[in-house]
Amino acid sequence: MDTRTTAVEKGSRFLNEENSVATVNGRMGAEVSPRMKLVMSGVVKHLHALTKEIEPTHEEWQQAIDFLTAVGHKCTDWRQEFILLSDILGVSMLVEIINSRRPSGATENTVLGPFYLPEAPRYRNGTNICLDGKGEPLIVKGKVTDLDGNPIPGALVDVWQTNNDGFYDVQQKDVQPDWNLRGVFAAEWDGSYWYRSTKPRFYPIPDDGPVGQLLGRLGRHPNRAAHIHFIVSAPGYDPVITHIFPDDCPYLGEDTVFGVRETLISKFQEVRSSQDAKGLGLGDLEERFPYFFVNWNFVLTPSVT
Amino acid sequence: MDTRTTAVEKGSRFLNEENSVATVNGRMGAEVSPRMKLVMSGVVKHLHALTKEIEPTHEEWQQAIDFLTAVGHKCTDWRQEFILLSDILGVSMLVEIINSRRPSGATENTVLGPFYLPEAPRYRNGTNICLDGKGEPLIVKGKVTDLDGNPIPGALVDVWQTNNDGFYDVQQKDVQPDWNLRGVFAAEWDGSYWYRSTKPRFYPIPDDGPVGQLLGRLGRHPNRAAHIHFIVSAPGYDPVITHIFPDDCPYLGEDTVFGVRETLISKFQEVRSSQDAKGLGLGDLEERFPYFFVNWNFVLTPSVT
Repeated sequence: MDTRTTAVEKGSRFLNEENSVATVNGRMGAEVSPRMKLVMSGVVKHLHALTKEIEPTHEEWQQAIDFLTAVGHKCTDWRQEFILLSDILGVSMLVEIINSRRPSGATENTVLGPFYLPEAPRYRNGTNICLDGKGEPLIVKGKVTDLDGNPIPGALVDVWQTNNDGFYDVQQKDVQPDWNLRGVFAAEWDGSYWYRSTKPRFYPIPDDGPVGQLLGRLGRHPNRAAHIHFIVSAPGYDPVITHIFPDDCPYLGEDTVFGVRETLISKFQEVRSSQDAKGLGLGDLEERFPYFFVNWNFVLTPSVT
Repeated sequence: MDTRTTAVEKGSRFLNEENSVATVNGRMGAEVSPRMKLVMSGVVKHLHALTKEIEPTHEEWQQAIDFLTAVGHKCTDWRQEFILLSDILGVSMLVEIINSRRPSGATENTVLGPFYLPEAPRYRNGTNICLDGKGEPLIVKGKVTDLDGNPIPGALVDVWQTNNDGFYDVQQKDVQPDWNLRGVFAAEWDGSYWYRSTKPRFYPIPDDGPVGQLLGRLGRHPNRAAHIHFIVSAPGYDPVITHIFPDDCPYLGEDTVFGVRETLISKFQEVRSSQDAKGLGLGDLEERFPYFFVNWNFVLTPSVT
């Protein structure tokens, strides 16, 4: 880092267009932590660069103030409109990616989202977590391994998803059974897990607030691509927060929170007969035809403690 | 502007660290106005650049969400915490400067602030606007002219300031008389105006909210340099929103909202005797000694309609 200081870099007593960043950042006290200094200097630098680039009118500046205020006023204990804003601007996904750079071959992560509930019921493999009986049946099956393909017995596969109407149980407490489409499965001795569910649906993020209005003004729709959420964990491994996305979802390439990663798109195969099932190595699962099947393996990396 | 497009510039269906800006901005609809496109592209570009520079942890990202939420929740009909945030980061002043680039010699502008009230009482020149009798007496006297020094008779000088305790009347509705330290004066045939008041005091911006906490964490104090607010206007001229700052204020070089401009610092002279007054060309103003005197001229530019 260049440690030379000039009049402008040191800032001035009086702010002008040329010295503005250094003048604001120069006010920080000597006792401020280096991390806080770095973060806030960056915030000021980019805010000022943005202001100089777009040269907002007073009215536009006031609109920005009003928008942020409306976003704040929309936030409650159960609604986080600033996270939605971060989501639709791609910032949440970027933070996710930056914090989880994994070796090639490891399962990539994506956003946690607001609908996770800890302590979902633990089920034996093969259990159906679709408690409302809606939608197209689905079998999810696969293995949890390390980077070399060694099974990780006992790895926990914590899963949650929407029902066939595109809602999570917590969004429809009076309609869906408790813990509908949630469950925790443990990998067997060979790393394998499997469970029954329903095919997930795409759904809109809550768009009745200022972030929904912004999406409208940007000519964007509020839909997330259909997906199933997973947190896969095992002692000694870095837990991975991720989704899988059915490859036939029309919103795959335009997920409104930018959560889709190419490596997380999965083939949902339609199984129409016992012949289809045999071809996929499924055996007799006592599931009525037709149903969907996805084979999905998770690859964990050692934890870095 | 370079109109070539590359894969990255066009964005991708799937966001990654390299393509993130183009991917988010590429989602904007074709019907979005060019101005909206420019503004939001800039917002996304700088937000992502900032995120990549500081690489926030999940905890830091959550802190940012929580901070913005707290700022939003502090906003009410009578308190605008997002404007305070814009103020202490120098953004408000920058917007002010960008929107009022004036020819050399013209009175420079500064922030309006939250305490202006329209329709203050109109007084004849020489009236005392200090209705609570507190503080050190002050005489303000000067001329309103154009860039060539020609007087602008009838120009309106709309003035407001704190009392000697550092509060505006609207902040102490039960303590100060209505319209204390506010008034509108009209320039005479020769462009001159004058009025009596009290010497303004430095004061803290409201610092009992999240912005005050941020100032604390930045090692900064919440004080504005002492000042008197003016809006000076006349038909055919661009109205100027400005302050003057007494040159003896200890916070002159560290105004917490960066509102001070070098050209707006004014000499507040102490007048101790009729001899002093005569030396300053003040004649007999029937004011008890000692009092303060400031001579201040406003130079307006033609309106650009």
